[in-house]
Amino acid sequence: MKVGVLTGGGDCPGLNAVIRAIVRKGCFHYEDQFVGFLEGWRGLLEDKSMPLDLASVGGILPRGGTILRTSRTNPAKKADGLDKCAATLQKHKVEALIAIGGDDTLSVAQKLHAKGVKVVGVPKTIDNDLAGTDYTFGFDTAVNIATEAIDRVHTTAEAHNRVMVVEVMGRDAGWIAMYSGIAGGADVILIPEQPFDIEKVAETIRLRHARGRYFSIVVVAEGAKFSTDLDPRHDAPVLQSMVKDEFGHAHLGGIGNILAREVERLTGFETRAVVLGHIQRGGSPSAFDRMLATRYGLGAIDMVHRGEFGCMAALRGNKIVSVPLADAIAKNRTVDQEVIDVAYGILDKLSAEKEAVEK
Amino acid sequence: MKVGVLTGGGDCPGLNAVIRAIVRKGCFHYEDQFVGFLEGWRGLLEDKSMPLDLASVGGILPRGGTILRTSRTNPAKKADGLDKCAATLQKHKVEALIAIGGDDTLSVAQKLHAKGVKVVGVPKTIDNDLAGTDYTFGFDTAVNIATEAIDRVHTTAEAHNRVMVVEVMGRDAGWIAMYSGIAGGADVILIPEQPFDIEKVAETIRLRHARGRYFSIVVVAEGAKFSTDLDPRHDAPVLQSMVKDEFGHAHLGGIGNILAREVERLTGFETRAVVLGHIQRGGSPSAFDRMLATRYGLGAIDMVHRGEFGCMAALRGNKIVSVPLADAIAKNRTVDQEVIDVAYGILDKLSAEKEAVEK
Amino acid sequence: MKVGVLTGGGDCPGLNAVIRAIVRKGCFHYEDQFVGFLEGWRGLLEDKSMPLDLASVGGILPRGGTILRTSRTNPAKKADGLDKCAATLQKHKVEALIAIGGDDTLSVAQKLHAKGVKVVGVPKTIDNDLAGTDYTFGFDTAVNIATEAIDRVHTTAEAHNRVMVVEVMGRDAGWIAMYSGIAGGADVILIPEQPFDIEKVAETIRLRHARGRYFSIVVVAEGAKFSTDLDPRHDAPVLQSMVKDEFGHAHLGGIGNILAREVERLTGFETRAVVLGHIQRGGSPSAFDRMLATRYGLGAIDMVHRGEFGCMAALRGNKIVSVPLADAIAKNRTVDQEVIDVAYGILDKLSAEKEAVEK
Amino acid sequence: MKVGVLTGGGDCPGLNAVIRAIVRKGCFHYEDQFVGFLEGWRGLLEDKSMPLDLASVGGILPRGGTILRTSRTNPAKKADGLDKCAATLQKHKVEALIAIGGDDTLSVAQKLHAKGVKVVGVPKTIDNDLAGTDYTFGFDTAVNIATEAIDRVHTTAEAHNRVMVVEVMGRDAGWIAMYSGIAGGADVILIPEQPFDIEKVAETIRLRHARGRYFSIVVVAEGAKFSTDLDPRHDAPVLQSMVKDEFGHAHLGGIGNILAREVERLTGFETRAVVLGHIQRGGSPSAFDRMLATRYGLGAIDMVHRGEFGCMAALRGNKIVSVPLADAIAKNRTVDQEVIDVAYGILDKLSAEKEAVEK
Repeated sequence: MKVGVLTGGGDCPGLNAVIRAIVRKGCFHYEDQFVGFLEGWRGLLEDKSMPLDLASVGGILPRGGTILRTSRTNPAKKADGLDKCAATLQKHKVEALIAIGGDDTLSVAQKLHAKGVKVVGVPKTIDNDLAGTDYTFGFDTAVNIATEAIDRVHTTAEAHNRVMVVEVMGRDAGWIAMYSGIAGGADVILIPEQPFDIEKVAETIRLRHARGRYFSIVVVAEGAKFSTDLDPRHDAPVLQSMVKDEFGHAHLGGIGNILAREVERLTGFETRAVVLGHIQRGGSPSAFDRMLATRYGLGAIDMVHRGEFGCMAALRGNKIVSVPLADAIAKNRTVDQEVIDVAYGILDKLSAEKEAVEK
Repeated sequence: MKVGVLTGGGDCPGLNAVIRAIVRKGCFHYEDQFVGFLEGWRGLLEDKSMPLDLASVGGILPRGGTILRTSRTNPAKKADGLDKCAATLQKHKVEALIAIGGDDTLSVAQKLHAKGVKVVGVPKTIDNDLAGTDYTFGFDTAVNIATEAIDRVHTTAEAHNRVMVVEVMGRDAGWIAMYSGIAGGADVILIPEQPFDIEKVAETIRLRHARGRYFSIVVVAEGAKFSTDLDPRHDAPVLQSMVKDEFGHAHLGGIGNILAREVERLTGFETRAVVLGHIQRGGSPSAFDRMLATRYGLGAIDMVHRGEFGCMAALRGNKIVSVPLADAIAKNRTVDQEVIDVAYGILDKLSAEKEAVEK
Repeated sequence: MKVGVLTGGGDCPGLNAVIRAIVRKGCFHYEDQFVGFLEGWRGLLEDKSMPLDLASVGGILPRGGTILRTSRTNPAKKADGLDKCAATLQKHKVEALIAIGGDDTLSVAQKLHAKGVKVVGVPKTIDNDLAGTDYTFGFDTAVNIATEAIDRVHTTAEAHNRVMVVEVMGRDAGWIAMYSGIAGGADVILIPEQPFDIEKVAETIRLRHARGRYFSIVVVAEGAKFSTDLDPRHDAPVLQSMVKDEFGHAHLGGIGNILAREVERLTGFETRAVVLGHIQRGGSPSAFDRMLATRYGLGAIDMVHRGEFGCMAALRGNKIVSVPLADAIAKNRTVDQEVIDVAYGILDKLSAEKEAVEK
Repeated sequence: MKVGVLTGGGDCPGLNAVIRAIVRKGCFHYEDQFVGFLEGWRGLLEDKSMPLDLASVGGILPRGGTILRTSRTNPAKKADGLDKCAATLQKHKVEALIAIGGDDTLSVAQKLHAKGVKVVGVPKTIDNDLAGTDYTFGFDTAVNIATEAIDRVHTTAEAHNRVMVVEVMGRDAGWIAMYSGIAGGADVILIPEQPFDIEKVAETIRLRHARGRYFSIVVVAEGAKFSTDLDPRHDAPVLQSMVKDEFGHAHLGGIGNILAREVERLTGFETRAVVLGHIQRGGSPSAFDRMLATRYGLGAIDMVHRGEFGCMAALRGNKIVSVPLADAIAKNRTVDQEVIDVAYGILDKLSAEKEAVEK
C-alpha cells in the first residue's frame, strides 16, 4: 500500500518518533511504500515531497523537530485548497494519508476525509489539551524542560530572597503549568482555567515569609488571567495594548512580566520574571515521549490497514484506540480534577484553598 | 495525629518527594505531627529517628536518595523484631505509620498490621514490577537515564561499526529494558520474561548488516537468560560460577558481558558491553516521577485519615486508589501485552518475530 | 585562625564550591575556624551570620546558589557602613575576611582593606568580564545552558523555516554570546563590543536562504546595540523608553525582541525571539566550574595564610595567582582577539566579514 | 585547494565539530574543496570516501561520533600500506591531508609525511594525555558525564551508608579521574600515576565514619594499580588472569570491582562498584568541547594554507599553535602538579597526605 505522511502545526518533540514508527512497521510488517509531504498541508498544495523509507528514518528517533518540516498552512482557507490536496495525493498514487498535527491540522484532515480521501490522524499538542486522548507526546518533554528551569530559578530565588515568576506555555489549559509547578515545587500555580486574585497570590507569599521562607516560586501559564481589574493606573490590559507597535508585534512578554511587577508592588519583595518560550518545544524528546510517539505511530499505520479512516489514534489508559476525528477536534481538554486535587494537597495552604474554592 | 514515616529497600528517585507530600498535606490540612524513622525498619528496631516538619522537607523535592536513609534490615527475621518495632512506635506515641518500600518492606508492614499496628504502605520499585499498581515512581527516571546512555552509545556504535550491548536493571521483569530499548532505538531487546535464542540475536544483527546498517544496539535486562545451553567450551553458567571468588563476590559483570562475547563470536562483528548499574537509581527524579511520587504521598496521608490501614496507595489509570497490602506483595508484574506489541511493531523484523512467537 | 566568608552580588553557579574549598582546606590543613556572614555585606552591617564547619559544607558542591545567600547591599553607600562592617568582624574575632563577589563586592573589599581589615577577594562574574583573571567560575555553566537552549531552538527553527533570535546575558561584554553562539552553531552573533548593522544581519540571513538553508539562528548579548538609528517610525530606543511604566519597570524584554521584529521586517522570514534570562545563572555548576571554583577557594585560603591581603585570587593560564584588588576592579575585560578570530573563521562569510572589518 | 580529511582511533565528542570547522573555513575563506576518507586510515587503504561540503557538515556540530566514521586500522602495519594511502590521495588529487586522531593515528600521519605527503594533524584523546597540547577536545564532555554519574551515585551512597567505587577512563593518566573526582566531591581519587596503598584508602574511609560521614565515594581510573601485592588468597592479578577466557576476553570489569571488594573486606562497610565505560565517550559534546574542537579545526585548515605540514594544531594557553608531530607523539602527559595540589587541598586529609607524600 502507498501511504502519505505529513506533520502540521507547531513543532513538538516526538514527531520524528511517530514518523519512524509508521515507516518501520509499514515496511517490516505490511510491505507499504511511503511518501512524505513537506511542511504540513503546504506540501500537498504545492506538491513538495520526499521519499520515506527505512534509511530515511534511521537515527531520527532522538531528534527534535520533524524531518518533514511543518507549517500552519491551511488549505481549507484557500480556493480549491482541499481539491488541490486530493489531486496531489492522486498524482502520487497515495492510497491513504496519515496527518500528524493539532486541531487545525486534524480539522483539515476531517474535511479531506469528508471529500473521500482516506485519512488517519495522529494528535499532536505540546499543551496536552486535545480532547479524546489522555496524553499527547511532547507534553512530558515540555514539562521536564520547564521543571528543570524552575529548579535552576529556585537556587537564585533562595540565594537572593526573591520571588521568581516563571511563565510557561498553555494558552487555554494549564497542564504544563500544573505539572511543572508541582514537579518544580512552586508555591503558587496560576492557570487559564481559574482567573486569579492577585491579592491572594500576594498573601500566600507574605505568609511564607512569615514562616521563615524568604523566597517563593510562582508558575504561571501564558494564558492565565487576573480575576479582577487592576488599579487603572497600572492596568495590565492597558499595558498590553500599549506595547503592540504599529507593525502589530506585541512586546510586553505577557502575563509573567505583569505578574512580577504586581507581586513586587503588593508584597515589597524583589521579584523577577523568566519567560521560557520556545525552548519548551525544541530538542530531544524524553524517553516517555519517544515511547508514546512510537505507540501513536504504530497505532496509526495499523488503523490504515484496518481501514479505520476519518479517525485518529488516541491513548486511553494504557491502550491506543481509534476515535472519530470529529470528536477530537470538538473541544479543549482542561486540567482535570485529579491534578487540581494534587495542587490542593501540596501547595501552600492559602494558595491551595483559593484554588479549591474557585474550582 | 502523630504519624511515623520510613523508607526501606533500595533507594529510588522520588522518595523525598513522597516524604515531602506526606508532611506538607499533613501539616497544612490535617494538623498532623511527624516523626521520621531512619534507615528503614532499622530505625524502629534501634529507635533512631528525626523530627519531620515543613522546614525539614524544604528543598528536598529535586533530590535523589532519601533524607530518612534506607536499609534492607528485616525485623521479621530477628527475634522479637516486630514487637520491638511496635514498642518504638508506642514510645513515640505514633498513631499511624507510613512505610515506603518494595515488597520486602511492605511484607513487614503487613505483618506489623496483623499485630494491630496502623500501617499504610507506599509501593516503591524502580523496576516497575509491583503487582497492584500501574506505575511506580523512580521507573521513569531510570528509563530516562538508560535511554540517555543508549543515545550516547549509539554514536560510538555508529562511528565504529560496532555492536554495543547495554545491560540495564531488571532482575525479574523487563520493564526498564523494554521502555529504554524502545525509546533508545535498540535493535534487539532481551528480557527475563523470554529466554532468548542467541542464534536469533546474531541473525537479526547479520540481517541489519545485509541491509546496510553496520552497527546494532542490544539492550538486555540483567535477569535475561539464554534459552539454550551454550557450547560447553564457553558455557555461561560455568563462567558465572568461575568468577565467584572465595569471598563470595561475583565478578563477571553478568549477562551483558557474556552476551557481548557471544555476539562477537557468532557474527564476527566487534562488540562491546556497557553495564549501567547503580547510576540508574540515583540522582534527581524526572518531572513525571516527582508528580507521581507526590501523588503517592498525598494518597498515603489521606488513607491514614480515612483509616484505610493494612493497605497501600496504588495508581490505577489516573487515580490513586487503596489496595490491600496482601494483594500487592503476592506477585511480580511482568511486561504486559501492550508493551510486547510495541516491541513487535518497532523492532527489526526477525527480532520482533522471535518475540512474537515466544510470547 | 578565625576567618570570615561572605558572598555578594548576583548568584552564580560555583559559589558553594568556593565556600566548601575554603572551609575544607582551612579545617584539614590550617586548623582554621570559620564564620559565614549572610547575604553579602548586609551580614556584616546587620551582624547576621552562621557557623561554617566541615558538616555545614557537606553536600553543597553540586548545588547552585550560595548557602550564605547574597545581596547587592553596599556598605560604602551607607553612613558609617564600612565602620560597622569592621566592628562586626571585630566582635566575631575574625582575623581575616574572604569576600567572594563581582566588582561591586570587591570594591567594598578594597575599601575595607584600606581601613586596615585583612581581606582577600575571590572574583565572581558569570559574564567572564572581570579584568585580572582569565576565566571566572559560573561562566562555563552559563555557556552550557545557553548552548543547550540554542540546540533546542535549532530544531524548531529548522522544522518551521524560521529565524530564531536567542538573547543571552552580557551587558558590557559578549563572552557568553560568543561562546554559546559558536558552540550552538549560530549564524550571526551580536555583542556589546561591536554595534551591529541590521542590514548586514538581514543580508547574511538572505544569503543563507539563497544557498538553501531556510532557517537561521541569531545569538545576541543583552547589551548589543544597533550601529545606526532605526527608521524613526519603529525606532528601538523610542520603543524601549515607551515601555518603562510609571513604576520604572522596563517591560520590553530588550534587544532580542526588537531584533526579531527588525529581522522579520527586513527579510520577510518568520522570526521569533527567546530571552533566556535568569535560567542562565541558576542550577548545578558544570564540572569545569566546580573545579575552577574549588581552585579559587583553595587559592583564597592559602593567600590568607600567606598574608596576601588586599589581593584577590586570579586564574592566569593554569595557575592560581594573587593580584591586587585595585587592578581587578579597574576595568571590564571584553572579548579577546582569539575568540573574534574563531567567529571570523566559523560564521557565515558575510556575518564574519562584517565583524572582521569592524573589529 | 583539494583537502582530504579523516578521523581515526576511538570516537570522541567533538570530532564532528572539527570536521565542520575545517570545511566551513575552507569553503568560506579559502575556496577549498574537500573529500572525506571513511573509517580512518582504512578509507585510504580501501579507497572509501565521501564528498564533504557545506551541506554535508550542516547540523553535525552537536552530534557525537564522526560522520566519517573511524577505525583502528594501521596502514604502517600492512605491506605497502603507506604507499597505498599515498596512491589513494594521488588518485583523488588531494593536495593536503588533515588527520584527526590519537597517537596511533598521528604516528601514521608522521610516517606518511616522511614519505612526502602533505599532512596536518589534529590531536584527539578523551584522556587529555597527549603531550604537546594543554587540553584535548572530548575530555571536558567525559568529565561532565563522569561527574554527573558521581552525583547520582552520591545520593545512593548517602541513602544506604555505603562506599561507592566509580571506575572512570584513564589507562595511563588520571586526568578524568582527578577532574571528575574533584568536581564530584570524591573522598578518595586513585590514578595510574600513583600506585595506591589499599590500607590508606581504607583508613581514610574509616576516619570519615569516625567524624560522622557514613558514606564515601572512591573514584578510580581504570589504569590505577595497587602499590603492594594483595594477600595471595585474594590477589588481584590472579583474579584478573583467571577471568580471561579461552577466547581471550577479559571479564572481570577491572580495578573498580576488585577495589570495591577489598574496601568492603578491610572496612566492613557495604561497598559497590560502578564501571562507567563507553558512555563517557559518546553523545553530544559540551559547549567547551565544541568551542575547542572548532578552534582545532580552524587551526588545522589555516596550517594547511600556511604550509605547516608534518605538524599538528595544539592548544597552548589560549592560543592554537603549530607543533611538530614528532614531539606530540613522543610521550604521554600525566596529571600535572597544579591538579595534584588541588586534590591535596580538597580531599580528606589522610587521602590527600598520601598523595602528597607519594607524588
